[in-house]
Amino acid sequence: MQVVITGGAGFLGQRLARQLLKQGTLPDNNGQIQTITKIVLVDIVAATGFTDPRIHQITGDIADSKLLELAITPETVAIFHLAAIVSGQAETDFELGMRINLEAARLLLERCRQCAHRPRVIFTSSVAVFGGELPPVVQDNTALNPQSSYGAQKAIAELLLNDYSRKGYVDGRVLRLPTISVRPGKPNKAASSFASGIIREPLSGESAICPVGPDVKLWLLSPRKVIACLIHGYTLTAEALGKSRTINLPGVSVTVGEMVAALERVAGAEVANRVEWQHDPAIDRIISSWPGAWDAKRANALGFTSDASFDDIVRAYIEDDLPAA
Amino acid sequence: MQVVITGGAGFLGQRLARQLLKQGTLPDNNGQIQTITKIVLVDIVAATGFTDPRIHQITGDIADSKLLELAITPETVAIFHLAAIVSGQAETDFELGMRINLEAARLLLERCRQCAHRPRVIFTSSVAVFGGELPPVVQDNTALNPQSSYGAQKAIAELLLNDYSRKGYVDGRVLRLPTISVRPGKPNKAASSFASGIIREPLSGESAICPVGPDVKLWLLSPRKVIACLIHGYTLTAEALGKSRTINLPGVSVTVGEMVAALERVAGAEVANRVEWQHDPAIDRIISSWPGAWDAKRANALGFTSDASFDDIVRAYIEDDLPAA
Repeated sequence: MQVVITGGAGFLGQRLARQLLKQGTLPDNNGQIQTITKIVLVDIVAATGFTDPRIHQITGDIADSKLLELAITPETVAIFHLAAIVSGQAETDFELGMRINLEAARLLLERCRQCAHRPRVIFTSSVAVFGGELPPVVQDNTALNPQSSYGAQKAIAELLLNDYSRKGYVDGRVLRLPTISVRPGKPNKAASSFASGIIREPLSGESAICPVGPDVKLWLLSPRKVIACLIHGYTLTAEALGKSRTINLPGVSVTVGEMVAALERVAGAEVANRVEWQHDPAIDRIISSWPGAWDAKRANALGFTSDASFDDIVRAYIEDDLPAA
Repeated sequence: MQVVITGGAGFLGQRLARQLLKQGTLPDNNGQIQTITKIVLVDIVAATGFTDPRIHQITGDIADSKLLELAITPETVAIFHLAAIVSGQAETDFELGMRINLEAARLLLERCRQCAHRPRVIFTSSVAVFGGELPPVVQDNTALNPQSSYGAQKAIAELLLNDYSRKGYVDGRVLRLPTISVRPGKPNKAASSFASGIIREPLSGESAICPVGPDVKLWLLSPRKVIACLIHGYTLTAEALGKSRTINLPGVSVTVGEMVAALERVAGAEVANRVEWQHDPAIDRIISSWPGAWDAKRANALGFTSDASFDDIVRAYIEDDLPAA
């Protein structure tokens, strides 16, 4: 069985690849457990540190249909499409966001349609598809009204994947991810980068700037749970999804102030005091347009699970990633 | 002042052009009334019967960026984008629907962005963006879940126009149209073609087939009111629209049985008896996925108005179009 991961050199892509190598199998479209023989990582740069012969790497532009022809073949059974331009960058570089977040998704689906073997395709979407006037808790049937180009591009990719699935060209699933915290590594250009930075940097003895106020509410999920949700989403049957392929993943709703309080509970006051509050209106505008919580009952009924608390998320980071940091 | 109408040779495009020629003016972006000096009709074929020197025609493929460069120039102030592949045809010819309903909309917006003069752009959308599990009356904040490729493509165009407007590249408005009834002329490949045919054909002494049952509920608006809504939507200020450029237009909610009863009241039993009931599952599937009513309070507050009743719609057709039929 052959698997493709776009954005395969990214933090989630690499972690997903390692998990798939470890478990070694996935069900096929008929529910039969198959051995994974090949995982193709597609990204603009190569991932380093993989020595397993099942890993193949293709580097290049994901919005180039020639590259997609190399990556996706009639043998491809599973596609995890994680490649994206993050929210802050898609807002400042409109053309790049449109090309990677929208055009590449469309070309990937077209490649699948031309291959005519109906692969199972997982897209990741985001809290950023919501915005404008929102109920306190977003529901499965709340209208999308993105207030960022990233959110608009993700919402469009959702619609494309749903229609290509309805037509039978792919068997798609869209997982709307909460903001991921705590991401390991360096800050990135996502507006939500601070949601990891205010935990990660203090735990490494560095100060971190929080660009939004302590009352701003976020909907969060740990990397560990995101990987579990990606694989669980893959294993669901098409019948279980009914007339919508889009699933709001479960998460933990906390204010930024509560996040820092959790850090203090887990790691002490000295660590938590390394967070500096310095308002950034451009980041605040995007973050405040996102929902701080949504109703995850459909996801829960489908068997997805979230972290138990933000304290648990901090502890998971300390366990999984701090030693390497 | 220069105006562009795509789909300008179509039924709505021609009617809109005639109304604009008649009224002779439109407000510009500053609310100043300007004389219309040029109306460019863009379509795959030329409209016939226009002799007014303000009418210019460009024929060709709307999904060709070269054609859009000719049609949209720095002098273009208003764009009514009506060109579309209708629902039934977009479902059977997926590639054509994607090219005209999605790619042409994207290219048109890109052309506006490159021109850098922020024209006011009106897109028409449709009841077909809704579907799946729907409340009895669709609300402004009901999630889109299209069950046809036409609906998915229209929903994507809505998202694009909203984001291009938020970024300041255009000043956009999306008008979600009810099903238009009674369209003059011949049946077309829209799944909803019968919603005009069952009135138009009997009034011309011909029989008409109704492919759905009498209990199917439709949300309707007359051509006369659609033209008035298009022009009213153009005249609204951006401030009045807030964080969403998309407006569910008002309409009349009636069952197909009530439509035939209205025809009988207005034109007599002999005419109404020319409707033949012959079920078509493919059409029924698409039509039944659409909402039969939505809450138009936002549109009403913005000053849009609908027909008073379906009887009025039948009378409007007899007045406006039957003599020419």
